[in-house]
Amino acid sequence: MLTVSGVSGLPEIREGDDLAALILAHSTPSDGDIVVVTSKIVSKAEGRLVAAADREDAITAETVRVVAERGSVRIVENRLGIVAAAAGVDASNVPDGHVLLLPVDPDASARRLAERLREVAHVGVLVSDTLGRAWRLGQTDAAIGAAGVRLFEQPARDADGRPLAVTMSCVADELCAAAELVKPKDGHVPVAIVRGRADLVGGLDLPGARSIVRSPDEDLFRTGG
Amino acid sequence: MLTVSGVSGLPEIREGDDLAALILAHSTPSDGDIVVVTSKIVSKAEGRLVAAADREDAITAETVRVVAERGSVRIVENRLGIVAAAAGVDASNVPDGHVLLLPVDPDASARRLAERLREVAHVGVLVSDTLGRAWRLGQTDAAIGAAGVRLFEQPARDADGRPLAVTMSCVADELCAAAELVKPKDGHVPVAIVRGRADLVGGLDLPGARSIVRSPDEDLFRTGG
Repeated sequence: MLTVSGVSGLPEIREGDDLAALILAHSTPSDGDIVVVTSKIVSKAEGRLVAAADREDAITAETVRVVAERGSVRIVENRLGIVAAAAGVDASNVPDGHVLLLPVDPDASARRLAERLREVAHVGVLVSDTLGRAWRLGQTDAAIGAAGVRLFEQPARDADGRPLAVTMSCVADELCAAAELVKPKDGHVPVAIVRGRADLVGGLDLPGARSIVRSPDEDLFRTGG
Repeated sequence: MLTVSGVSGLPEIREGDDLAALILAHSTPSDGDIVVVTSKIVSKAEGRLVAAADREDAITAETVRVVAERGSVRIVENRLGIVAAAAGVDASNVPDGHVLLLPVDPDASARRLAERLREVAHVGVLVSDTLGRAWRLGQTDAAIGAAGVRLFEQPARDADGRPLAVTMSCVADELCAAAELVKPKDGHVPVAIVRGRADLVGGLDLPGARSIVRSPDEDLFRTGG
């Protein structure tokens, strides 16, 4: 059985806050847990607020490639390789007059958090963000940062022993999706702890979430129109 | 807290099997639970096996539009509006010499299951499939059929009371993703029960999963190259 528990009671996060200490003050992670942290509080702790007047400039600065544009909506690929509306620049749950950028390096943020949390319990850390999808309405949470968590699960064989070459589940994104179900968008539950998949927790040398991003030349899904 | 429990012990499913009875024989759903059923066993119960020799014809028959093609891999939009490799036609965990098509109408399949299961408990039903994504490696499970479950969650306000117009979480897909984490691809756990989001369970007149599919003309995410 898998359990997903929201961590509530954290204060409004400000630049310089010690997220690991705050998480440990409001939860009791155990060995094998996966701690899923909303990117927004990571960004706030890292001081990634900019003045709202500079929003369009901020989006442009984060943008590597414009995927599509209609009216005021810009779907872009940002410097992390993530395709998102407004390059992930966010105006909700931030102080008035400001917008929030994604963490500079969410994998590094996850690693720093994991190092601190592992002083208490052998956990994995995912930094999640809310992303739109091609072909399907609505957003789901996905991993933009990871430390000490296996991102993919590739079963070698089906029930009859036949190889399953094509299937490779992105468990990191599925863990973030599961976590979102206990993290209402009002921002009051910015962390969730997933228990029951200790097999996915490993060394801090495991690949970060940057490796989930497809390289454009191998992405059959983006060639269509 | 959310809990996700795998339902194991089901026999190999054959055409005509009573899935609702089999699920109830191996689990005890409660009011407010969401029962996530792998599409594969729905297809098997509905007799959607075809001879493997007819695989290419089957894919073509299920295809509405080819999104991309490289070597033997065809990414297509199928008659359900779902974009998937091989139109969702699957050769794993099926009898030798056969491939399995998706259910004819997964929303109707979900509704039939929900009607039966609701004789015991007021549950919602999702039929899940494993889908690839644009821009991101690996597959995640998503909802291709739904009955009695709210598919989307749209928070009206952020923590500071500002409207959050853009964000609409596809909780149906997130529930299927969470369920996949307890359903190994060896096929032995084809059903999972998610407990803790009874607020998402509603009438059988709620929209089916077909409504998750974006209409092409409003899909900014598919216009890019």
